[in-house]
Amino acid sequence: MKGNPGLAVVGAGVIGLAIAWKASAAGCRVTVFDPAPARGASWVAGGMLAPVTEAWPGDEPVLELGEESLRRWPAFAADLAREGFDPGLSLNGTVVAAFDHADAEQLGTLAEYLRELGREATFVSGRALRREEPGLSASVRAGLLVPGDLAVDNRKLLGALIDATRANGGTFVTEPVSELTSSRVRAAGGERAFDAVVLAAGAWSGGLSAALAGRVRPLKGEILRMRTRRGALPPPSRTVRAFVEGRPVYLVPRAGGELVLGATQYEAGFDTAVTARGVRELLEGAERIFPGIAEYELVETAAAPRAASADNLPYLGELTDGVFAATGHHRNGLLLAPVTADAVLAWLGGESPPKGTAAADPLRGSATDTTHREKV
Amino acid sequence: MKGNPGLAVVGAGVIGLAIAWKASAAGCRVTVFDPAPARGASWVAGGMLAPVTEAWPGDEPVLELGEESLRRWPAFAADLAREGFDPGLSLNGTVVAAFDHADAEQLGTLAEYLRELGREATFVSGRALRREEPGLSASVRAGLLVPGDLAVDNRKLLGALIDATRANGGTFVTEPVSELTSSRVRAAGGERAFDAVVLAAGAWSGGLSAALAGRVRPLKGEILRMRTRRGALPPPSRTVRAFVEGRPVYLVPRAGGELVLGATQYEAGFDTAVTARGVRELLEGAERIFPGIAEYELVETAAAPRAASADNLPYLGELTDGVFAATGHHRNGLLLAPVTADAVLAWLGGESPPKGTAAADPLRGSATDTTHREKV
Repeated sequence: MKGNPGLAVVGAGVIGLAIAWKASAAGCRVTVFDPAPARGASWVAGGMLAPVTEAWPGDEPVLELGEESLRRWPAFAADLAREGFDPGLSLNGTVVAAFDHADAEQLGTLAEYLRELGREATFVSGRALRREEPGLSASVRAGLLVPGDLAVDNRKLLGALIDATRANGGTFVTEPVSELTSSRVRAAGGERAFDAVVLAAGAWSGGLSAALAGRVRPLKGEILRMRTRRGALPPPSRTVRAFVEGRPVYLVPRAGGELVLGATQYEAGFDTAVTARGVRELLEGAERIFPGIAEYELVETAAAPRAASADNLPYLGELTDGVFAATGHHRNGLLLAPVTADAVLAWLGGESPPKGTAAADPLRGSATDTTHREKV
Repeated sequence: MKGNPGLAVVGAGVIGLAIAWKASAAGCRVTVFDPAPARGASWVAGGMLAPVTEAWPGDEPVLELGEESLRRWPAFAADLAREGFDPGLSLNGTVVAAFDHADAEQLGTLAEYLRELGREATFVSGRALRREEPGLSASVRAGLLVPGDLAVDNRKLLGALIDATRANGGTFVTEPVSELTSSRVRAAGGERAFDAVVLAAGAWSGGLSAALAGRVRPLKGEILRMRTRRGALPPPSRTVRAFVEGRPVYLVPRAGGELVLGATQYEAGFDTAVTARGVRELLEGAERIFPGIAEYELVETAAAPRAASADNLPYLGELTDGVFAATGHHRNGLLLAPVTADAVLAWLGGESPPKGTAAADPLRGSATDTTHREKV
């Protein structure tokens, strides 16, 4: 695409906003469509950029894409900061806590696997872990220190991306999109033409693309936001992860004594009610890991539908001529924002996309898969 | 007091509002002072009017006052309805659930005690209780049916009392009161004179009366508001109470599938942060009693300081010439509103106050107790 092309981005979650910012910085005339910018799954997130401590052997394509994006995160954050917007990046790393022998064995396996990938990960005793994070429960038996894991204040980042996009001349249309066809977008206020359209509507993407229909499903996630109080322990300095009764729980510290506690995961369609069960399980899990949280203030409960794919890989690539998919990021939207934005810019510029994105072909396993492959 | 006297009511919780309404209906020119009317402890309440299922042998003065107020509740509600305002009264009764042999034995004792007081209370098996309330846990072993217990939608009542007071010409000053002396009230906007002043400022009353200083203390209570969802069980039709791990838990149904779940109780000064521990304990307790609540939406969490006295009785009566106390109602404000309002009207009219109020003398056990008794 040459000159000063018009790009529509449908969806203002972290994926759509990262694309909008990068494209607007590269000279595109960007229009972002979203009835409620930044208030979907990216808003209801912990902000761990942790492909590693979430990874298990067998998930290689997901991990490869995550590692590729993680490598791009420092430059992505630095570019945003250079334009004058705080990306909210934290470099404090992650600890993973184990409560019993089985947990500890799994951490040992994970540590070995990570070292094979060239990542730093140290297996330590519970006592050594509590020296690093004194608020951890005495019943934590062992743990993993993963200093390379990054975290981001998702809400700060979303605000920064909106502001940076606007500063580059991008505009926002806060209307729901009803249809997008060959480089046209129809929203509530009428139809507009573009040189290219990016579909980044998360869990709603299936309703806007025949090729993705039924292949992006909403998966409800709930989080809690907590705040320490006078007389209570300060939050941990790093992200803390553990499994409690088979459920993954994370505590991600924020500036100012806040903490994000996540996340449940339910098949619940587009329902976003925060349930009694979800809240109880998160609080029980967190108290098990970090008992002092019992005295914290519960500041907010929130739920949003994440965009799940069948194989945990997102859908990245051209759907039809001039319409590109950047969706299905599930729990990894914040992590995968830089590699996704770079991929979109590569497609638009006719360049070779980042490593790891080929596996995320949006037509893989779909009815139109064969046709697509013949075309390629 | 003759003619059309000017009455100041300091505090717009249920006590202050009930007094304001009754006094305005009786022809007083009423001015109510509160920086945030109806947003204190009365707002954060279940609304059980249940002296009986809360009572234990030994608490006779509290129970006597509660029974006296309960007797006045139907007429109080009917009067309010007659003026055109819905008091939100529910006549569905209470069930008390027991999980083990010890709980069940206590219910047996309570049933006997209640029958001695002339109240209806039927001890039934867990199976029989579940026939009445099918959502109760299979681990409920026995229970008490108390059909005479009333409940009130506290927020509906508070709104009705404000509207009724306004309809009778009462006015509201939404300013904090800094001082009240011999029938004058000083608020942020200046000082005003009155014929009489009622101090109904709940947990804040001690700061406005030397005689009450240190004798009304804030006791933090937290509640949750839940709502049933598609596919979840409907709420119980009656108030349900039980002890879970030694903590009292109640579920009070509201119109429209809502449910109030309460209440924690902490010595926490005027802190009103909703804590992780409080929420977890309430949710755990409720799930133990009524497992289907796990699927309910958590709609709201709230905390407020209740006004506790040393002996659980409120402070009702003249403090100094022309200044009357109507405070210290602890968890019983909604129950005791009618008897308290009637007492204030009796004092103002020089009539004999309702039965049970004498024990609530505001100078009992205070430094000025002797003086006061000599005066009487």
